[in-house]
Amino acid sequence: MTGRNGGADLAPVEPSPVVILVRPQLAENIGAVARAMGNGGLFHLRLVVPRDGWPQERAWRTGAGAHRILEAAEVFASVPEAVADLHRVFATCPRPRHIIKPVLTARGGATEVHAVGARGLRAGLLFGPERAGLDNDDIAQADTLIRYDLNPDFMSLNLAQAVMIFGYEWWLAQDVSAPPPRSFQTHKTTIATKAELDNFMDHLIRACDAAGFLKNEQKRPGMVRNLRHLFQRGEVTKQELNTLHGIITDLGRG
Amino acid sequence: MTGRNGGADLAPVEPSPVVILVRPQLAENIGAVARAMGNGGLFHLRLVVPRDGWPQERAWRTGAGAHRILEAAEVFASVPEAVADLHRVFATCPRPRHIIKPVLTARGGATEVHAVGARGLRAGLLFGPERAGLDNDDIAQADTLIRYDLNPDFMSLNLAQAVMIFGYEWWLAQDVSAPPPRSFQTHKTTIATKAELDNFMDHLIRACDAAGFLKNEQKRPGMVRNLRHLFQRGEVTKQELNTLHGIITDLGRG
Repeated sequence: MTGRNGGADLAPVEPSPVVILVRPQLAENIGAVARAMGNGGLFHLRLVVPRDGWPQERAWRTGAGAHRILEAAEVFASVPEAVADLHRVFATCPRPRHIIKPVLTARGGATEVHAVGARGLRAGLLFGPERAGLDNDDIAQADTLIRYDLNPDFMSLNLAQAVMIFGYEWWLAQDVSAPPPRSFQTHKTTIATKAELDNFMDHLIRACDAAGFLKNEQKRPGMVRNLRHLFQRGEVTKQELNTLHGIITDLGRG
Repeated sequence: MTGRNGGADLAPVEPSPVVILVRPQLAENIGAVARAMGNGGLFHLRLVVPRDGWPQERAWRTGAGAHRILEAAEVFASVPEAVADLHRVFATCPRPRHIIKPVLTARGGATEVHAVGARGLRAGLLFGPERAGLDNDDIAQADTLIRYDLNPDFMSLNLAQAVMIFGYEWWLAQDVSAPPPRSFQTHKTTIATKAELDNFMDHLIRACDAAGFLKNEQKRPGMVRNLRHLFQRGEVTKQELNTLHGIITDLGRG
């Protein structure tokens, strides 16, 4: 079942979500992920601080011909930077902690990612490093969690297998009869990108710091994360963010 | 997403089909297959002529704790021996050649495998070697083909990914509300095992040889394979095989 079309011309199926590998360790696994992506018609790969740097020849060896995906891969210094231009971020995460965030199966997630793309919005999927998985700060960058429905007595997917299952569901969830994606901009409501949300979070946290609200140094990281979770819930529009910016500015003055 | 429950007690979900790796090359891939099986709740692993022998320590290293699956793996000298006690055999095969055999998707195949198990019959799945895939004789041992629905421009699954997708669909296709499996033996009709079918094929081919029907040495292998394909179609009962045995014996005498 291997390598028969390895060198095929690999064109992205648009609108294709971005696969974001967070702190991946082995270049071989990055190559295997690219191969899995090719099978599922996924094209856009981003790497957040790959341990051994990038590019790495070993990735091309395990990529089984998914060269175009690997050549187009982009490297980022942090998760916030990697998701800045995206409107929706899904985190694959085996066991949701006590976080209020929508949790979807791989199948439900694939359908949702298609729906996001059909509205002209860009989606990304976070996959954690090989051993540790995504940490709490990574997950706080996501608005939706994807939990795979698999044998709970033996839940141990490697990185490429995790990407493979999502890619498989994403391929199956395509509706070829669906209308082409259109820009989602009616009545002047526009979904904010993650960078715009991040910019607001910075503003809010600076204001909280100035007001002494986050003065407990020990509790501060968790509180900041919780605020981030709160504003990740649902799709925030640019207009709403503008309003919130205004409120914070005015409250800070008072 | 990795290794968290690697050492979990891995109990088979019954009735669980048999995963049969035909001439697998790398022990690492056998381990990765066992890991994929664990995620999908598949337990029974058979190896047909593994290239480097068996057991191989490298498989345990990539098995991520799926030790019980690897320890219980059975080795066979041929595909017919590996499927002898099975009632239904599915071959995963990316591009069906011109063969009249039912072709299912992974999702459809998983449902069918569950239905087979619910009738008290045993099913197996053939996966080909890493590069070459299943050959024509391997495929002739199967009664049903499974073709994965994936990006046709880049169809390049590795062995563990192929097993992972089937295992994933198999896990999802479980119906916990389904009645426990019962023996399928009503009105004295019993589905023949592959060994019983093979025994009949031997009888038929010997009779054909004796009658001079297969005397063209060049065409013989293809003709034998076609006969095998014919009798793989649908489920043949033991009673039907007995009748066919009788016919051949009598015709040979005449």
